[in-house]
Amino acid sequence: MTENSRAAVGWIAVDWGTTQVRAWALSGSGEILQRASSARGMSTLTPDQFEGALLELIEPWLDHERTIDVVACGMVGARQGWREAPYTEVPCAPQAVERMIRPEVRDARLRVSIIPGLCQRAPADVLRGEETQVAGLLAEHADYSGVVCLPGTHSKWVKVRDGRVTAFQTFMTGELFALLSQQSVLRHGMQGDAGHLDQQAFDSGLQAGAGQAQRLVGALFGLRAEGLLAGLGPVAARSRLSGLLIGEELAALDERWRGQQVCVIGDGESAERYRHALDTLGVTALTVSAERVTLAGLSAAHEHIQRGI
Amino acid sequence: MTENSRAAVGWIAVDWGTTQVRAWALSGSGEILQRASSARGMSTLTPDQFEGALLELIEPWLDHERTIDVVACGMVGARQGWREAPYTEVPCAPQAVERMIRPEVRDARLRVSIIPGLCQRAPADVLRGEETQVAGLLAEHADYSGVVCLPGTHSKWVKVRDGRVTAFQTFMTGELFALLSQQSVLRHGMQGDAGHLDQQAFDSGLQAGAGQAQRLVGALFGLRAEGLLAGLGPVAARSRLSGLLIGEELAALDERWRGQQVCVIGDGESAERYRHALDTLGVTALTVSAERVTLAGLSAAHEHIQRGI
Repeated sequence: MTENSRAAVGWIAVDWGTTQVRAWALSGSGEILQRASSARGMSTLTPDQFEGALLELIEPWLDHERTIDVVACGMVGARQGWREAPYTEVPCAPQAVERMIRPEVRDARLRVSIIPGLCQRAPADVLRGEETQVAGLLAEHADYSGVVCLPGTHSKWVKVRDGRVTAFQTFMTGELFALLSQQSVLRHGMQGDAGHLDQQAFDSGLQAGAGQAQRLVGALFGLRAEGLLAGLGPVAARSRLSGLLIGEELAALDERWRGQQVCVIGDGESAERYRHALDTLGVTALTVSAERVTLAGLSAAHEHIQRGI
Repeated sequence: MTENSRAAVGWIAVDWGTTQVRAWALSGSGEILQRASSARGMSTLTPDQFEGALLELIEPWLDHERTIDVVACGMVGARQGWREAPYTEVPCAPQAVERMIRPEVRDARLRVSIIPGLCQRAPADVLRGEETQVAGLLAEHADYSGVVCLPGTHSKWVKVRDGRVTAFQTFMTGELFALLSQQSVLRHGMQGDAGHLDQQAFDSGLQAGAGQAQRLVGALFGLRAEGLLAGLGPVAARSRLSGLLIGEELAALDERWRGQQVCVIGDGESAERYRHALDTLGVTALTVSAERVTLAGLSAAHEHIQRGI
């Protein structure tokens, strides 16, 4: 960045997850000037390493003379993160902007704010980062009412009404898929061509997973046995497993949430799989870009900070 | 072994699984003279290494002048094993003794027979080793009719009628428990005291898993969240997970199998958990020692070989 473009940086947005950190340099009017990311996620850092990991990403964007606001969401605020930002309990607005915390920093050019995650007492559940995406969705669609689906390693389903989160539920679908396809006995029939999806196999898994006839634990080993007995190929086996797990997730959703408007937040193939799965089961879902709503949510928090000055 | 006791060895029984191999030296009248085991399971060996791994265990039992029968069951007969013993398709007698195969051996003192596993076309399923335990159960209780439960990394439920296996189903319950408790995000709340069971936590998991209200994938992350929000301890969390998975397995069992007599084959804590779980759900199950029925099944196959001489 040149000195001129450094001067144009109004603030910095950060989405700091378990395995990754992404940062954006934004102009005062919200234009994206630069993007940066690294694999120095929360799980790789001790509390005293966060400032250094952040500077590695954003140092080129900083002015020498000026303190700049960094607004962060995600696992950075977990107990094992930079500094704990205690959960806000639902029902509540997605972002508890008045409860953001400020970790101490050595570099005077930084003023860091971390947005708290959400918790739910019964059934017990927690999230960090998704609250900001939901806030971003509401910043763009203030009257959105319904269910928000956020696919991922742990997918989250968030119920929104009158600008508040009323309940949410976490599914370990992505993590189960990774464990089963890479580490369980099923891996023997799933190697190679990891990127491809066999749509027909996915759909048959989806129907089986979403159906009431058989539960997931009773269906998994069949993928191995069909490989041995009927020549089920690796791409079909992996696609069927993905369908089974997503189908099971959709069937397991709180019944009271059915028949609501659904919005899928995500980029790329994972969001498309969920949208397609919902469509197959008769639910038409909006899809919204994850980067866009993340930035909209972080911007809303930043505006609150500016109003407070 | 002294020369005298070597002379007393009538034949050798072997249960050769994926990760372990166990061998017994038996007298002509079926008395156990010696036991041996090693971690050289099927998954650690190439086909040409099986004979050496077997000799490591049983060499001290062999006479220099005499050929001795070794009767083996389990993954040793898989496609990736010593030599493939093709599956027998159900419905059929549990042991297809007339279809045992004889891998070539270099050591003239050995005559090895491998018992085939079973397959089922729809739903696709396979087993190896459990057919011999079921055969052993039937050798001792010829008129047994009902369901046989064989807990393990992959638990098997086998339906038996008129001395034949009519159907079976595999659940990856033990493997899922290991993956989730040791490798998933849930491990953070499950470390330490791996041997203990919190009976009350197990029972609450069992009821939740067996119930219709919530599916497994919707319940898993709650174990992590309760650790964070309500101080759920590691022993309770792991016990609840075990209950959830076993409950889900029992609920997923083919409906047509309900109301039948159930026999649990197994030694130690795992079998006791299943017996207790069945009891809690109103099913009184017999329990039978796994070693005992394994040897009874291998003996039945050995008798067939002897009659053939």
